[in-house]
Amino acid sequence: MTAVKRTTAAGAGSSSVANTSVSGLMRNIADTGRDPSRGGYTRSVFSTAENDLRTWFLEQAQRRGLDTETDRNGILWAWWDTPSGDRKDAVVTGSHLDSVPGGGAFDGPLGVSSALIAVDILRERGLSPAKPVALAVFPEEEGSRFGVACLGSRLLTGAIDPDKARNLRDPDGTTFADAATAAGLDPRYMGHDPETLNRMGAFIELHVEQGRGLIDLNEPLAVGSSILGHGRWRLTVRGQGNHAGTTLMEDRHDPMVAAAGIIRAVRDCALRYVGARATVGRIVPVPGGTNVIASAVDLWLDVRHADDAVTAAVVENIHVAAVAAAAAEGCTMLLAEESLSPTVHFDPGLRSRLGELLPSAPILDTGAGHDAGVLAGVVPTAMLFVRNPTGVSHSPEEHVEDGDAELGAKALAEVVEGLVGMP
Amino acid sequence: MTAVKRTTAAGAGSSSVANTSVSGLMRNIADTGRDPSRGGYTRSVFSTAENDLRTWFLEQAQRRGLDTETDRNGILWAWWDTPSGDRKDAVVTGSHLDSVPGGGAFDGPLGVSSALIAVDILRERGLSPAKPVALAVFPEEEGSRFGVACLGSRLLTGAIDPDKARNLRDPDGTTFADAATAAGLDPRYMGHDPETLNRMGAFIELHVEQGRGLIDLNEPLAVGSSILGHGRWRLTVRGQGNHAGTTLMEDRHDPMVAAAGIIRAVRDCALRYVGARATVGRIVPVPGGTNVIASAVDLWLDVRHADDAVTAAVVENIHVAAVAAAAAEGCTMLLAEESLSPTVHFDPGLRSRLGELLPSAPILDTGAGHDAGVLAGVVPTAMLFVRNPTGVSHSPEEHVEDGDAELGAKALAEVVEGLVGMP
Repeated sequence: MTAVKRTTAAGAGSSSVANTSVSGLMRNIADTGRDPSRGGYTRSVFSTAENDLRTWFLEQAQRRGLDTETDRNGILWAWWDTPSGDRKDAVVTGSHLDSVPGGGAFDGPLGVSSALIAVDILRERGLSPAKPVALAVFPEEEGSRFGVACLGSRLLTGAIDPDKARNLRDPDGTTFADAATAAGLDPRYMGHDPETLNRMGAFIELHVEQGRGLIDLNEPLAVGSSILGHGRWRLTVRGQGNHAGTTLMEDRHDPMVAAAGIIRAVRDCALRYVGARATVGRIVPVPGGTNVIASAVDLWLDVRHADDAVTAAVVENIHVAAVAAAAAEGCTMLLAEESLSPTVHFDPGLRSRLGELLPSAPILDTGAGHDAGVLAGVVPTAMLFVRNPTGVSHSPEEHVEDGDAELGAKALAEVVEGLVGMP
Repeated sequence: MTAVKRTTAAGAGSSSVANTSVSGLMRNIADTGRDPSRGGYTRSVFSTAENDLRTWFLEQAQRRGLDTETDRNGILWAWWDTPSGDRKDAVVTGSHLDSVPGGGAFDGPLGVSSALIAVDILRERGLSPAKPVALAVFPEEEGSRFGVACLGSRLLTGAIDPDKARNLRDPDGTTFADAATAAGLDPRYMGHDPETLNRMGAFIELHVEQGRGLIDLNEPLAVGSSILGHGRWRLTVRGQGNHAGTTLMEDRHDPMVAAAGIIRAVRDCALRYVGARATVGRIVPVPGGTNVIASAVDLWLDVRHADDAVTAAVVENIHVAAVAAAAAEGCTMLLAEESLSPTVHFDPGLRSRLGELLPSAPILDTGAGHDAGVLAGVVPTAMLFVRNPTGVSHSPEEHVEDGDAELGAKALAEVVEGLVGMP
């Protein structure tokens, strides 16, 4: 496979690496990608910060004697024992290293660090895995740079057309293909990768909880049950750009006023459906000058609900309200779907096995999307959530206590050991 | 004066330059600073595009045998005859070369090109000016990069503290001082420049009209009477950043929803005062991710009215409504004035002299700010407006017919000749 880069570690299989801790690994990367203006971290996929984290992961894996490879979709792999070909038996765990702009420290890196520490714990116990164990790191989980969340796992599973992926553009106009090339990948080889999928027997993603479930239950860890269906839509409102000083209020077709009406309608539509969440977190007026009535405004809509029919109904209601809000200002409105993922229920067999291995852990669903949700369609998949005492995520306030982080890695080690021992 | 760069043209005073046309000069610069994504032109002050235009102006002036200098505030000057020291007798005409993002071709460059052609016309007529004539180009008239409109003329006249100006930052965090240094200026010398002001006997700015006044009057040219008072304010709404998928609608303190309420309130407040204009053309959510509830939103407000008391009342009404809109979402709101200019009435003596020189030109006021409005406080100042057949400005649709542009330069030449001949 031309596009796969492999490194076989010199001391493969050795257990000479000093055991460390999740919080120790998190401190290793605490200075990478800090965002001085927003606070927290901005680690866009294939930025200097995220590339540094990718290199850090490969080094950490190699120090542990794992064989590393970067696959043709830019997913990083670290193998404890050689991949077993198409036997579908490898137990894979991992997460992502990219962040939203101004995000927290734990969303992604906690799962990667915990996977590395789980290997240390199992080595300490003298485990010699009966099946291959692998760690994986997925690029562009957040979709913050190219607009499509879980882009790496979508490419791997064939859930996105590779041509569409290659042509996605970041806000500066750089294509995903060009950004991937700059990161040392060959975008020609991107796309559905059955060879890699056929190695995977199970995928377990450990992740910081992004809500208040574990706070309310007063528990440090949970096993995931499902991921709410969610999607992203782009709304473009077009009006008449003009001078802010010379254009009378009555003569305006101001798309910003229409967009404001749409943002209010998004909230109002979501409130009509119990459990629905609808958000506008990103808005870009064109041209965006203080003394200029905008000619157009782009806004991005995120909608989620456990019932996919409700998600569709919320979006349809918003669509109707947005067209009306635009028309009221003499503007036009177009809505385009950027991504849509149905509600995912994790593999029931795997979930009950995790319940046996972690008997005190409650079962929680989540409104946050994850690569685990994409992989769940093709590989038995499960998630572990670690308590976030602020209940806040995608924000610098996201937090995990050191003790909970170590408990999480220990639970992940239990799960991997238990699954490797499965017949 | 350390910070003044001077070039004395070899053939100063010669009339060997081929006469050309305003539309010819406009074609010279038609490819500079085009904005492929917004349409029109983006020529931010001290960007490559604006620097290229500044160089182009100096070359055009030197070809005409004018002595050029760049003063310590970055204003370009081209002198027909040596400046006369502090005799306050020079007749100065000019405008600016920077644009709003995605602006039109004429806003600024029309006045600069017309000034150059007026020199050609007067040379053709064999005029030997009894008083010095100068052309001037002011930096950052739009305030699109550093937030304060007419920054060059404000520095010249002492209307802004140079420390405040030096510390203004563009959206990338670059200070005005650093941008000016990169453009070859020494920002230590910026600020009130009485020596330069004491040379100026009159300032005439020709500008594309930015409204529909001349369309309605079916006239190609007008003499300006006044500039509406206007100001800029920055509103910062702070809420609780969080995950768009995991945070229930009822648990949110979403500053974007509050900002949307504020944008609607801005329009509603302006509509309550006849002739008031209030605009939000720029909005920046922090962090600005699709799957992130914003933690804060900055929005910029532009308000204008002929009666300064009404401007103040509109802003006060907006302030009260904005605080309430923020509080309704559990957010906070701070409003900060970025600039405020009272209504300017141009010099009555100069205006009536222009009325004699251009008897068919109607008298018009304008809602657009100009360097002429800042200079009017310290120098007898007047404006000429050239018809814009679309009535649209700060937009790629802004337009001037070639015939009207040449009429404008001819009228400007009449005015300069008439004023030079004044006792």
